Amino acid sequence: MEIFGIPGLPEIVPGTDLAAVIFDAAAAAGRPLASGDILVVTSKIVSKAEGRVVDLATVDVSPFARQYAERWEKDPAVVELVLREARRVVRQVGPVLITETRHGFVCANSGVDQSSSGGHGRAVLLPEDPDASARRIRGGLRERGIDVAVIISDTFGRPWREGQTDVAIGIAGMHPITSYIGQVDPHGHEFRVQALCTADEIAGAAELVKGNLSRVPAAVVRGLPWERDDQATMQLIIRESERDLFR
Amino acid sequence: MEIFGIPGLPEIVPGTDLAAVIFDAAAAAGRPLASGDILVVTSKIVSKAEGRVVDLATVDVSPFARQYAERWEKDPAVVELVLREARRVVRQVGPVLITETRHGFVCANSGVDQSSSGGHGRAVLLPEDPDASARRIRGGLRERGIDVAVIISDTFGRPWREGQTDVAIGIAGMHPITSYIGQVDPHGHEFRVQALCTADEIAGAAELVKGNLSRVPAAVVRGLPWERDDQATMQLIIRESERDLFR
Repeated sequence: MEIFGIPGLPEIVPGTDLAAVIFDAAAAAGRPLASGDILVVTSKIVSKAEGRVVDLATVDVSPFARQYAERWEKDPAVVELVLREARRVVRQVGPVLITETRHGFVCANSGVDQSSSGGHGRAVLLPEDPDASARRIRGGLRERGIDVAVIISDTFGRPWREGQTDVAIGIAGMHPITSYIGQVDPHGHEFRVQALCTADEIAGAAELVKGNLSRVPAAVVRGLPWERDDQATMQLIIRESERDLFR
Repeated sequence: MEIFGIPGLPEIVPGTDLAAVIFDAAAAAGRPLASGDILVVTSKIVSKAEGRVVDLATVDVSPFARQYAERWEKDPAVVELVLREARRVVRQVGPVLITETRHGFVCANSGVDQSSSGGHGRAVLLPEDPDASARRIRGGLRERGIDVAVIISDTFGRPWREGQTDVAIGIAGMHPITSYIGQVDPHGHEFRVQALCTADEIAGAAELVKGNLSRVPAAVVRGLPWERDDQATMQLIIRESERDLFR
């Protein structure tokens, strides 16, 4: 299995056709995309292409957001956006705000990003429907004759362990979970490991070559077989509230 | 960056010199280990080599373990081992038992594994000191003239998301966290992402080629630069209780 970044993408603006620019950049770099590849795209460029960048000066700030922002020296407009993107606040301790986004992701600040947002005074929101974003990119590549699975990734923290990791927030074309349920080892025991979230492991692996500073927002995983699933969505990864011991 | 499994390892028994058998198997497979590689080893074979396999018939079961095991149809001796390996029970809901191990890892069943344990009636415990295990393997490879970072991996679940992923539980030779703290993007903003747990992303990436059924318990990540740190331990990854919102 091999993983490489796709360098040379142009500046992404609202309306950029990501399938087109990624396809072209990979070809220009001498490593054209091929059927069977898994393409991992950083959510930030998806958000930019979809116009999910907000001018903070235009945000009407609620009293709750203003009070919290003042107490912890945060930007009131950013706090307001974090709350609007949230379905629920999971933890609010000091300056840390862990929310459940409208998509169902549990992460810091609803995934709202004030860095690299294309200028001061702006914030980038997560894509409205990252599965749909992944399907659009996959569809665009199919029109160019290649059958590629697509993962949209973002960088999330997790409990218990320091450091963030990249995980999947949108998926198209591949089943994200590898199940071992019902399979037994040579001694007849069922496997302790029942299901692996392959999509998250792929997103994390791609981060290793993309990096967060190197400005390579797309990477290709080649040589890893994947299970085709045109119905796959993130709902397969998001744990239902009722089954969750930490929500 | 390229990732490949090391096939052809012999059956691991107490006392097996893992550095030696991994070094030899990689060479025999035509892909010898080289300085600069990152070697990822599944904890199970480390446990087996270190004799961390328990005959369940020899385990004295406490009343608490017995009662819980009966209620949820678990093996009483396994429940007893799970409790002994734990420093603290983090969640106990129905048959699910999430513990903090003596190492500080938060995971299901203290990492005790009844599958693939080399026969019925046995269970495999996590290595006593996985950092020391990693250092021993790294040292053994150094004696063979190569400078390789070593990660011991295990498969853990996580809150909020379905499917498990492989993460690091022991490390030697490389700094496990890539920090962006204080660095700014081209617009002068600090990065939202402050630190990435590279070691966990590498462990997950290696799982993709090792698999859980394919019986390839070691993999090599080649072509990824890593920050040398001979003092690195898992304490850099384990979040302190006081800073943890979900413990």
